Amino acid sequence: MTPGAKLTDAITVPAEDALLSALLAELGPRSVLSGDAIPVRNEKDWSTLAPVRPLAVVRPVTAEEVSATMRLCQRFGVPVVPQGGLTGLCGGALPVEGCVALSLERMTGIEEIDPAAATMTVRAGTPLEAVQKAADEAGFFMPLDLGARGSCAIGGNLSTNAGGNRVIRYGMARDMVLGLEVVLPDGTVIRGLNKMLKNNAGYDLKQLFLGSEGTLGIITRAVLRLFPKPGCTMAALCALPSYDSTVRFLGAARRGLGPLLSAFEVMWPDYWQVVTRQVPGVRNPIAGEHASYVLVEAQGMDEAIDAPRFQAWLEAQAEAGILTDAAVSQSLADVRAFWGVRDACAEFVQVLGPHESFDIGLPVARMDDYVQACKAALEERLPGVVALFYGHIGDGNMHIVSFLPGAATQPKRVIQEVVYDMVRRFGGTISAEHGIGLSKKPWLGYVRSDAELELMQRLKTALDPQRLLNPGKVL
Amino acid sequence: MTPGAKLTDAITVPAEDALLSALLAELGPRSVLSGDAIPVRNEKDWSTLAPVRPLAVVRPVTAEEVSATMRLCQRFGVPVVPQGGLTGLCGGALPVEGCVALSLERMTGIEEIDPAAATMTVRAGTPLEAVQKAADEAGFFMPLDLGARGSCAIGGNLSTNAGGNRVIRYGMARDMVLGLEVVLPDGTVIRGLNKMLKNNAGYDLKQLFLGSEGTLGIITRAVLRLFPKPGCTMAALCALPSYDSTVRFLGAARRGLGPLLSAFEVMWPDYWQVVTRQVPGVRNPIAGEHASYVLVEAQGMDEAIDAPRFQAWLEAQAEAGILTDAAVSQSLADVRAFWGVRDACAEFVQVLGPHESFDIGLPVARMDDYVQACKAALEERLPGVVALFYGHIGDGNMHIVSFLPGAATQPKRVIQEVVYDMVRRFGGTISAEHGIGLSKKPWLGYVRSDAELELMQRLKTALDPQRLLNPGKVL
Repeated sequence: MTPGAKLTDAITVPAEDALLSALLAELGPRSVLSGDAIPVRNEKDWSTLAPVRPLAVVRPVTAEEVSATMRLCQRFGVPVVPQGGLTGLCGGALPVEGCVALSLERMTGIEEIDPAAATMTVRAGTPLEAVQKAADEAGFFMPLDLGARGSCAIGGNLSTNAGGNRVIRYGMARDMVLGLEVVLPDGTVIRGLNKMLKNNAGYDLKQLFLGSEGTLGIITRAVLRLFPKPGCTMAALCALPSYDSTVRFLGAARRGLGPLLSAFEVMWPDYWQVVTRQVPGVRNPIAGEHASYVLVEAQGMDEAIDAPRFQAWLEAQAEAGILTDAAVSQSLADVRAFWGVRDACAEFVQVLGPHESFDIGLPVARMDDYVQACKAALEERLPGVVALFYGHIGDGNMHIVSFLPGAATQPKRVIQEVVYDMVRRFGGTISAEHGIGLSKKPWLGYVRSDAELELMQRLKTALDPQRLLNPGKVL
Repeated sequence: MTPGAKLTDAITVPAEDALLSALLAELGPRSVLSGDAIPVRNEKDWSTLAPVRPLAVVRPVTAEEVSATMRLCQRFGVPVVPQGGLTGLCGGALPVEGCVALSLERMTGIEEIDPAAATMTVRAGTPLEAVQKAADEAGFFMPLDLGARGSCAIGGNLSTNAGGNRVIRYGMARDMVLGLEVVLPDGTVIRGLNKMLKNNAGYDLKQLFLGSEGTLGIITRAVLRLFPKPGCTMAALCALPSYDSTVRFLGAARRGLGPLLSAFEVMWPDYWQVVTRQVPGVRNPIAGEHASYVLVEAQGMDEAIDAPRFQAWLEAQAEAGILTDAAVSQSLADVRAFWGVRDACAEFVQVLGPHESFDIGLPVARMDDYVQACKAALEERLPGVVALFYGHIGDGNMHIVSFLPGAATQPKRVIQEVVYDMVRRFGGTISAEHGIGLSKKPWLGYVRSDAELELMQRLKTALDPQRLLNPGKVL
């Protein structure tokens, strides 16, 4: 019982019951679910961690109700775990024992689209796909995109600084935010709904909450920057003779396609073979075996101008000997088919069975050295292990899928140790886009120094001295 | 005397002398200037505030020496003011009484250019122009650009989150930074020299130091993102019949030029008339008088493709009735001449004499309403006042120059009150790109709430509990 709670509460009912009564009184029964009314979906996210049943699920509809929830939970010393679409892969939204799960699922809707400023003001619980659709209907483009688009909430995307396929052109979620409304652990509402590209009036407070996975504050509304709709999309699947030529090809894409370059995805041969041979429905337009495969994509304004430009640029690369082979899209259906090779990893659970998957980052020049060193180290520790490498290489972001065929239980920990130890040696990051949450916490010290971790703790203490907001996550 | 200082120091010499001796012992005489050796240039920046003589100027050459300086100054309770190129307009680098001015002028040089990652690692004292030149020589483009490029230091650009002419395409200085090395007020060195576009391993600490004007830490090195060199630049000076058509023109530029759009500068008629009639050497390619003037610029990859595209796009706007008249560049000399109209404001001190100048931000849709309301309010308070409006309207950033002709002393305070009060009413910002420093502090409460200011203070306390780093600036 914290000092803020009334003495009569302490005598008559436990703190949990007193908190529930107070929440019910303030927010009403539609917003406060406890006991059998707690939905199973709020017990876990898309990570592989075991579900945890919260004390209650609170579903506020305004920032004021979020604020009231925070104040009451602080008064009773009860932890709060914010929840969006629950699609996170690292357990960032997993309830902790005895917590209130604060779900933003009822704070949905687009409040405004300002065509002159090219901005959208949106509530945090709105699904990403609804945000994309509203932008499209208003004649704009919202470039943030990821597989979970139908389920994930924009607030969660921002809290985790989501990445996705087109970071090379549009940046991370952080780069698409102009303003935020945030509720602090003590209930203070920070209304920073800025709509201007430039605003240097004091510290840029929104940066604190973008990517800190709901540990410093709860994002309740956001002003997003909207972009012009691309007029056309061109893509090519390319085969290359080496990783060196892949890096040269990336440089040529940056120079030749300039800001039209919207994706540069690399697949190593092991990945390519599994995907083109084992995943049903994947079309392989490239004959033979090659050292490296690249999906390169550009978004232009005008197909009559930009499609021939893309084709001519690609032919020049082939003539320069950078490419061995290439298939160029002639239609949007081709573009989708090419992406089918890259996105086939979504079928890996069905096709490969249990496996470990990774979201790491590395300096571009060292990617292939990493792949070779990591494969060798995995093979040494786990003879017969399979490891597939692919990812958003133009962004320095690599995904890895690894498993030991025939193992009764996958050697999860050994695979993680090898992959992350090698990341540390190569100056990379253990999380490029998925965040840290709970599951990557043990490895954070591999890539952040003691001084950095201490500074993160200092920020946490400054904003959440009682450590009641999403406790145990990230730090 | 702080508890950390030795008792013998307290008996024999004042704290200042003891600090100077300790700094000299640790850093050597080339790095510690005091008494008559203090250069006049370190007493002020480009603001109009009165110079202040620091206790000493310390010029370290490594992060370790910056750290040692911070530790010693903390031990003796002496404030530290970081200084870069001293070109700031708001007094952010102005010494405070009894401070050590920590100048980064000797921490210069580019440490690495990584062509695969497209990054540059640079020391904080390096002049912006040297950064631009090194990028160019390596086949890349560093888009940050502003008038003070020859004198300003990259560390200062990052500390103030500098803007400039091409924010609409490349973003602010913040958006060009992938990693930072920073020394905290207690001397801790945070080495966050990340080179990856995507890195979600814990809080993004660099965001704290970008734009906080040296009040939370001292930036000593940075990893900058480099861009492909533009292959061609096209520009047009356009006359428009109304502000509404100007907003429509901006929308058309976003859609038609897509990510090639690199500048959208608007000039109101009063500005246009002063510049084309009174500033020597300015060429006026537009006949007659118009409601609005726009300089629109696009950077393409290939002149053969992108120059005709720009021309065709512009013709379509004229045919649609959005434009009244337009002059299109036929050469780089034309592009420069067009920018000459926009950059003529640099001559205003010579041409107009003493005046107040402003760097405000407003939602794009409300810009012209602001102009009319601000002009009327100024005229009411100061009959006969002149006010010229122009700026980076595509970014929501407006500059204002105002003065009362014939006044013996300019009514500085009244002009500021009117301009900033109107900014508050229109939901704008008192600083789009110049920062707050000392001179804008009195107005910060106009555009940031008490809750926001309190959170800024909380961050300051968490990082600099003794308030010795650039004290009194921003907050």
